[in-house]
Amino acid sequence: MPLAKEEYLSNISYDSVIFGFSGEKLKILVLEYHNMQTFALPGGFVKVDEPLDAAVSRGLSERTGLDEIYLEQFHTFGSMERFNPEVMQTILEAQGYFLDNHWLLGRFITVGYYALINYENVVPKPDELSDSIKWYDFDQLPKLMMDHNEIVEKALEYLRTHLDQKLLSFNLLPERFTMKELKQVYDAILGETQNRANFQRKMLGLNILERHEKLYSGGSHKAPFSYSFKKGQ
Amino acid sequence: MPLAKEEYLSNISYDSVIFGFSGEKLKILVLEYHNMQTFALPGGFVKVDEPLDAAVSRGLSERTGLDEIYLEQFHTFGSMERFNPEVMQTILEAQGYFLDNHWLLGRFITVGYYALINYENVVPKPDELSDSIKWYDFDQLPKLMMDHNEIVEKALEYLRTHLDQKLLSFNLLPERFTMKELKQVYDAILGETQNRANFQRKMLGLNILERHEKLYSGGSHKAPFSYSFKKGQ
Repeated sequence: MPLAKEEYLSNISYDSVIFGFSGEKLKILVLEYHNMQTFALPGGFVKVDEPLDAAVSRGLSERTGLDEIYLEQFHTFGSMERFNPEVMQTILEAQGYFLDNHWLLGRFITVGYYALINYENVVPKPDELSDSIKWYDFDQLPKLMMDHNEIVEKALEYLRTHLDQKLLSFNLLPERFTMKELKQVYDAILGETQNRANFQRKMLGLNILERHEKLYSGGSHKAPFSYSFKKGQ
Repeated sequence: MPLAKEEYLSNISYDSVIFGFSGEKLKILVLEYHNMQTFALPGGFVKVDEPLDAAVSRGLSERTGLDEIYLEQFHTFGSMERFNPEVMQTILEAQGYFLDNHWLLGRFITVGYYALINYENVVPKPDELSDSIKWYDFDQLPKLMMDHNEIVEKALEYLRTHLDQKLLSFNLLPERFTMKELKQVYDAILGETQNRANFQRKMLGLNILERHEKLYSGGSHKAPFSYSFKKGQ
């Protein structure tokens, strides 16, 4: 019998939107359940003696193999439309569990977390419930179960609105980077190409970048400046 | 018996931080429980067939008498430190209920909502659980139960960070207002006096204000400009 009732809080779950970026396209990590063509965000439940944040880190690690990722809460979803016990029943039955009145068939309010990682640094592994775990291009996302597409949209909206402040937490760029590399991050996440001059002006205006002397590079006068984030930001 | 278990979701609650402003000081709405010198934010529980947002509006209306207030979710709190069943037991016993194993004595993850209203427009009324409901100056807030002071701090941090975008939703200012009135809102919420010239420059730069012609005012050439928010913001 999966997930004993006494060990978990009822009626509350979490779902994680893991954005991936590696210099070009924005991607999202999606699970597929065994034999079901059902796609879902990695999510889970909170143990009775476990802080919410710790549950989310543990669950992500168990379900995807990804450890030590900086996750941030962005919204809690509690509409009635997301109450759909048939979906969970089908998932349980596909694993051979035929249960009525299981607590997993109840209504769940879910807390949304997101992260943004360089997906070249990690190799996700599916857990036993899932057939596969894959990175999907944001613009080629499959239909996800329940309200998971809506959760992705809300996460992206949050990420876009807060990108200036969050950029440093995500560790997406090398220690030193060019303005072009920085612009690629913004272009991918905002989903549109920024004007180069305006972008540079805006980023310098934020006062978070330190500019470094050009290294001597074989006589070229065209080597771009490199930047790093100011310390103590 | 208060709050029948079958009617409510377990393990999930909400708490509301209602900020009040009326041209000068920032205040917060706090309940005091009967005979207990226990101070708390207005909060409550979610019915099994009720969307989370609707539960918060209903609860605020029942507990404070305040209706049709624009509430926004800001954070969900799920640490173990907030699990303190003795506090709830004491509140229940003060009302004459001596119960073991009541679902209200379980662990609750709570969703925080906030609002910002002009407190001259409303008269809060305490519910039957509460002795009193009062506006407290932010800098004279009593010690609140459990983690409610921390919830207030986090709400204020959110409000301060998002004030430029949220200003229009809150309906704090008359249709036409002066730059001085607008600055009073910022001074009160940010907790410090803004420099007048810098503030004006910043607000005009946001491109959300429409400036109106000065009305003829008895020969004075010193009447200030009035502003309104641009439509469609």
